[in-house]
Amino acid sequence: MRDDEEQAARRLAERVLEGDTRALARAISLVENDAAGARMLLSACFASSSASGRQSLRVGITGAPGAGKSTLVDGLARAWREAGARVGVLAVDPTSPFTGGAVLGDRIRMSGAGSTSETALAGGIFFRSMATRGALGGLARAAADAALLMEAGGREVVLIETVGVGQDEVDVARLADVTVVVLVPGMGDDVQSLKAGLMEIADLFVINKADHEGADRLEGEIRSVQSLPGSRHIAVPILRTVATEGTGVTELRAAIESLRNQTMQRGRIAERRAAFWRLRFEGMLLAALRARLASQGLDDAALARHAERIAAGAEDPYRLTEELVRRALGPDVG
Amino acid sequence: MRDDEEQAARRLAERVLEGDTRALARAISLVENDAAGARMLLSACFASSSASGRQSLRVGITGAPGAGKSTLVDGLARAWREAGARVGVLAVDPTSPFTGGAVLGDRIRMSGAGSTSETALAGGIFFRSMATRGALGGLARAAADAALLMEAGGREVVLIETVGVGQDEVDVARLADVTVVVLVPGMGDDVQSLKAGLMEIADLFVINKADHEGADRLEGEIRSVQSLPGSRHIAVPILRTVATEGTGVTELRAAIESLRNQTMQRGRIAERRAAFWRLRFEGMLLAALRARLASQGLDDAALARHAERIAAGAEDPYRLTEELVRRALGPDVG
Repeated sequence: MRDDEEQAARRLAERVLEGDTRALARAISLVENDAAGARMLLSACFASSSASGRQSLRVGITGAPGAGKSTLVDGLARAWREAGARVGVLAVDPTSPFTGGAVLGDRIRMSGAGSTSETALAGGIFFRSMATRGALGGLARAAADAALLMEAGGREVVLIETVGVGQDEVDVARLADVTVVVLVPGMGDDVQSLKAGLMEIADLFVINKADHEGADRLEGEIRSVQSLPGSRHIAVPILRTVATEGTGVTELRAAIESLRNQTMQRGRIAERRAAFWRLRFEGMLLAALRARLASQGLDDAALARHAERIAAGAEDPYRLTEELVRRALGPDVG
Repeated sequence: MRDDEEQAARRLAERVLEGDTRALARAISLVENDAAGARMLLSACFASSSASGRQSLRVGITGAPGAGKSTLVDGLARAWREAGARVGVLAVDPTSPFTGGAVLGDRIRMSGAGSTSETALAGGIFFRSMATRGALGGLARAAADAALLMEAGGREVVLIETVGVGQDEVDVARLADVTVVVLVPGMGDDVQSLKAGLMEIADLFVINKADHEGADRLEGEIRSVQSLPGSRHIAVPILRTVATEGTGVTELRAAIESLRNQTMQRGRIAERRAAFWRLRFEGMLLAALRARLASQGLDDAALARHAERIAAGAEDPYRLTEELVRRALGPDVG
């Protein structure tokens, strides 16, 4: 990295740590694109957050499309804002793999109730959306970095909203201290298969649109899945909301905070953070190794040439892998 | 790898290449678990398939849960079987991230119409299901290897069925020469967001349950999304089926084969196979590097210890990464 890039990254980190929202927005773009200085920036923010004991409450909100997650997240953000907390919202959408980048961009939303008050103007709610990038695991990585930056930027609560199907959400859920799974009545049998995956990551269930028919039946279904053999056998709390009317949102906020403070959940949070870093750290190591390979001549262009020859059946990837690693790094003397 | 493992892998590869279905089933389990000998087995199958010009038609079938994909895939498999082709079916389910392994196991289905005929008994339809493993990108890797083994095992058509949401499907779709996206009438506005991602990977649309109300409107919606700015602007064919009654399945089979033979699609297939190998080959290189790190002392236990210290804020992962790579592989002299 060039000296001026290093300087710029340091200055940006300082501004993030001072709570500058514009700097936070720029920092997230920088790490999302893995631009020059991103590592330096993250390192500075990580070190400073750790030293000061700054640790935000990370809440994951997930559920099928149409469950009303956005409205619920907006309501929760406002509720925390009104209680005086500075809030970051990260809306992750892994369902549009080819849009490439944040579709909505950054915006600082002024919350309804507090929009003219000084506290809202002084901090507001920082909102950021992210869509899937090309790289495998790229979304979870970018979301993790963004959450870290929000934490460093003084957001005491970070709400991470994802669409709840597939591996991406599970990876993103690993980021959260408390994961809320949002369900709605009357989504039919086809949703059962989706629910099964979500069951395992839920610390708390919300039945949204609880004024619709079938809320009781849905609660019964959740309870019955919880009691299946092989399930975690933990009585996960079930709350009801009507997000569009704000009903139950304050109670949900309180339930999340109370859950976070429970001994068992504290243990789970510590475990989950370690498990998250286990994967993330391995990813970072692999990225560093990948960079090492590139500097030894195995850059993107070389990989593309090999891929074409492999696709044409002219090279055997299984043999080639070993050969190239040996050539780039020398024989394994471990 | 020990000599006897190498021997066993070679023998298994020979049996797969002879078309032995039991050997194929074992081989898939072996590569799915990345067991000893897996690389040798894949290498032997790859080399032999390439040398003999053996290349199956790979058809991806994707769509939301409840779209009737399984029934459609069964129908297609039967249709190809009746036309004399040997068929492999790979059912990939990324929505149950914690089930770990093939839920249904292997089975060799005897197709309805041809169940008593000699051709069906001589080859039948080889069916395999796969669920998500823990590792990032693990499902796409395992599916790719399984498709390669099916090809080596003489399956002229490989049908790859996935649930169509999220990155996993997109990765799996990269495996296919022709990707069929299955939609059903009346799934409502909430599905629009899912459709957007699927639009980009579709070579062919199927409106299944076409006897339900709203098929015309759905076709109109697909056409209107196709004409949006930023879309590929290719007139992707739209077919209609009622899979439960077998209606339109033969026509769908014919449309897929005809599409495969079109010049433009042939170009796309070549591009896609190269793009697939680009990602896959990089994944293989990274796995080899990971193994190298492990042999230098950075094994799973060491990673877990670092992860705990990072989660506790006692180590900075961004600095540590560089340091460890340098320590394990020496300074970068590229």
